[in-house]
Amino acid sequence: MSRTKTLANLFNAQSIAVIGASNNPCKASHQIIKTMLREEYKGRIFPVNPQRKDVLGLPCFSSLRDIETSIDLLIISVPAESVFEALKPASSRKDIQGAVILSAGFSETGLADRINLEKSIASFAKKTGLHIVGPNCIGLINTDNKLCTSFSPGLKLRPGSLGFLSQSGAFGGSFLMLAGDQPEPLGFSKFAHVGNASDVSMVDILDYYGQDEQTTTIAMYLEGVINGRDLLDKAKQITSKKHVFSLKVGKTERGSRAALSHTATLAGSDRIYDAAFKQGGIVRAESIEELLDAAKASSKMPRPRGNRLCVITEAGGPGIIALDELGKKNIMHLASLQESTKKRIKELLPSMAVICRPEGYIDMTAAAMEHEHAEVLRCVLEDDGVDSSILISVPPTYLPAESVASAVADVVREYDKPVAVCLMNGEAMKAARCQLEQANIPTFDTPDRAAKAVENLTRASMSLNRMS
Amino acid sequence: MSRTKTLANLFNAQSIAVIGASNNPCKASHQIIKTMLREEYKGRIFPVNPQRKDVLGLPCFSSLRDIETSIDLLIISVPAESVFEALKPASSRKDIQGAVILSAGFSETGLADRINLEKSIASFAKKTGLHIVGPNCIGLINTDNKLCTSFSPGLKLRPGSLGFLSQSGAFGGSFLMLAGDQPEPLGFSKFAHVGNASDVSMVDILDYYGQDEQTTTIAMYLEGVINGRDLLDKAKQITSKKHVFSLKVGKTERGSRAALSHTATLAGSDRIYDAAFKQGGIVRAESIEELLDAAKASSKMPRPRGNRLCVITEAGGPGIIALDELGKKNIMHLASLQESTKKRIKELLPSMAVICRPEGYIDMTAAAMEHEHAEVLRCVLEDDGVDSSILISVPPTYLPAESVASAVADVVREYDKPVAVCLMNGEAMKAARCQLEQANIPTFDTPDRAAKAVENLTRASMSLNRMS
Repeated sequence: MSRTKTLANLFNAQSIAVIGASNNPCKASHQIIKTMLREEYKGRIFPVNPQRKDVLGLPCFSSLRDIETSIDLLIISVPAESVFEALKPASSRKDIQGAVILSAGFSETGLADRINLEKSIASFAKKTGLHIVGPNCIGLINTDNKLCTSFSPGLKLRPGSLGFLSQSGAFGGSFLMLAGDQPEPLGFSKFAHVGNASDVSMVDILDYYGQDEQTTTIAMYLEGVINGRDLLDKAKQITSKKHVFSLKVGKTERGSRAALSHTATLAGSDRIYDAAFKQGGIVRAESIEELLDAAKASSKMPRPRGNRLCVITEAGGPGIIALDELGKKNIMHLASLQESTKKRIKELLPSMAVICRPEGYIDMTAAAMEHEHAEVLRCVLEDDGVDSSILISVPPTYLPAESVASAVADVVREYDKPVAVCLMNGEAMKAARCQLEQANIPTFDTPDRAAKAVENLTRASMSLNRMS
Repeated sequence: MSRTKTLANLFNAQSIAVIGASNNPCKASHQIIKTMLREEYKGRIFPVNPQRKDVLGLPCFSSLRDIETSIDLLIISVPAESVFEALKPASSRKDIQGAVILSAGFSETGLADRINLEKSIASFAKKTGLHIVGPNCIGLINTDNKLCTSFSPGLKLRPGSLGFLSQSGAFGGSFLMLAGDQPEPLGFSKFAHVGNASDVSMVDILDYYGQDEQTTTIAMYLEGVINGRDLLDKAKQITSKKHVFSLKVGKTERGSRAALSHTATLAGSDRIYDAAFKQGGIVRAESIEELLDAAKASSKMPRPRGNRLCVITEAGGPGIIALDELGKKNIMHLASLQESTKKRIKELLPSMAVICRPEGYIDMTAAAMEHEHAEVLRCVLEDDGVDSSILISVPPTYLPAESVASAVADVVREYDKPVAVCLMNGEAMKAARCQLEQANIPTFDTPDRAAKAVENLTRASMSLNRMS
């Protein structure tokens, strides 16, 4: 069976055994069972712990041998020194296809005996054909069947089209939280944190996401990989079909030294990764927010046909901030509007409005009400010279943001072009932003983040075009 | 009377007349009176409008001449073509010291007659000695007496030590909203948006903030100034006593062309501003968030004695992100801890913890509970080789963030050193972050923002040292 097929089976496990299941709420094993019960995991859960009769209302088994039902996936949460013993019985059963080892205390400690312990696990995986995720990880989430081995607080398993993989558990958990905190929470299809990657690697997960039908956008947090060539090859295949975004840390001397202590991987020269990402069609994000924004843009918006962008703003300062951001890399071309489009826009706006100075930039001024927001956007989207648009507004007290949102959503619905919106007054804009995002129009906190998101969406779409 | 003294009188106006006062909630003049009534402005408000008997329950006057009480400040909100007529009677009275002109439609339109209209206003100001803020502005806020000519929705006038000045009204309003949306809303002392700056300039406001006792930190949004030398001279004086942070837009060719259309000021070569800021001790921020974070850091934390920083993290990935940010400019020095400090920390943490690899960096690992967070921080703050610290944590389900917050706050209280905290799980962390900020410990959404904030605080404090 291919590695991706086995990974598919692990993500879609219909029955799991949790070794080290506990009634102590301070234990990860307790929290993950609790989460799966709350989220109504579609498979069966078998807690295993010789010292317990039941865990969270489920009957508890004293050993794996006592479970007569077929088991697809083991989840191991016992002290490091007991992990190998817990894993061994899996090989004598024919049903188990893999294990997630949550326990920490292996090669990341830098201690010789712990490094050897991890090596034994890796050899065991090779010998038996079991696929092992971890150790030192938070493992897998599938929002379809609600399998979840993560113990981040406040996690919600909202389905979506984003596959996320992370080389840091804490980063992975935080990313999912941030995604859930968007005006309309951003869903995801799969999540994976491979920890020390003794067996299943980041590249394996990436490969699987490439083939997973529920995943159309991929985002990843990367510290470094051992086999860069492998990553590059897989990336090339995937980015011809799907958008792939990555935050790669260890950019600086200081950062890469900390990465070495963390996952014991050499972060490697940052320029090599830059070049490999470019070649592989992976779009690199420079911060958590940028990664999230790109993932949101890709999850919600149609793919742009080119890089010709029109920026519409209701306020000068925020408009300049967007242009400054776009001017850093000059990937986006400020669209040249047709004379007829300019004429129509001029008729809509007061004389003080700034139309196409510079080209592809419209400052409607603070006199613009919901009607002007919507109709100027319509003129822009109807212009064949425009591939995408950013709309920035700071609605004053006398202009309800919700009215702007519904007028804008009505227009965007009619055109198959990406439109990103920035409504700038913080919490006061939340309801309007939620309304827009429910209509699949992504919204952003600041004009530079909106600009960056459209730029990254366009870069990723250019990768698709290059390959197909 | 000096310009700063007159500006002080405008900010502290004990009576104001609002020309163009209206009962129509869509009008700016209506909204500002409503805000001042709600916030209990400490002076008297005289609405002026020949077509009204009263506005929002206040008796309305048909002309300025009918008001017998002394007036300190005029607020004008009538169409551009009527502004000069509204302004004129002010000169025949001896009481009025200045005016805020909210109306738009002047030089920003690029139309010859409107440019001339603005010139007449400027000449009038020179001739009469009246200080004019605007036109095309949202004017002034003083959180002490609750004077407020801004019409941003959801605005709260929470007092604080931050003086904010903006060359964009929309940006200014948004900045105040963002400040108000912090876990513990960030207060401010004064706000000013000078619009087209026909008379009162950004430099005038900066000068006044430099002398205002309620303002200890200054933040500004800048597109460009006419007299750069003047800005530099004032900045030099002020930054020897107070922290000054600035976002300067028009960084790129595209951005500066939009700035030209916006406030008709040449953004100028960006490198010249960079050099001038450096010489003047102004710390430049590159985004809205960075400006806000610097302002928050400066408002809440003690001034660091030097640049020796220790980063403490509970999670590897987020720790690396902080080090990457610090590695970009290498302004901060990663602190060398004393051997005795390292030994104490080693006793507190499990064997897998990473202590000072690299130097000045501690990864406590996810096993760290509230006690470890607090006591490791204590060891670090007690070390004479440390000037400031960043604490990053992604509390798992079994570690209540509130317990971490109170344990950490108890330790920080004992030492006079800046500590910035990043608690990384979004909304779920809000209560804990609020608790920390109420104890004057600033919190940040991401490790890179925390790192940048401490770096900017340190840069600003180095300016103070350089000058004194």
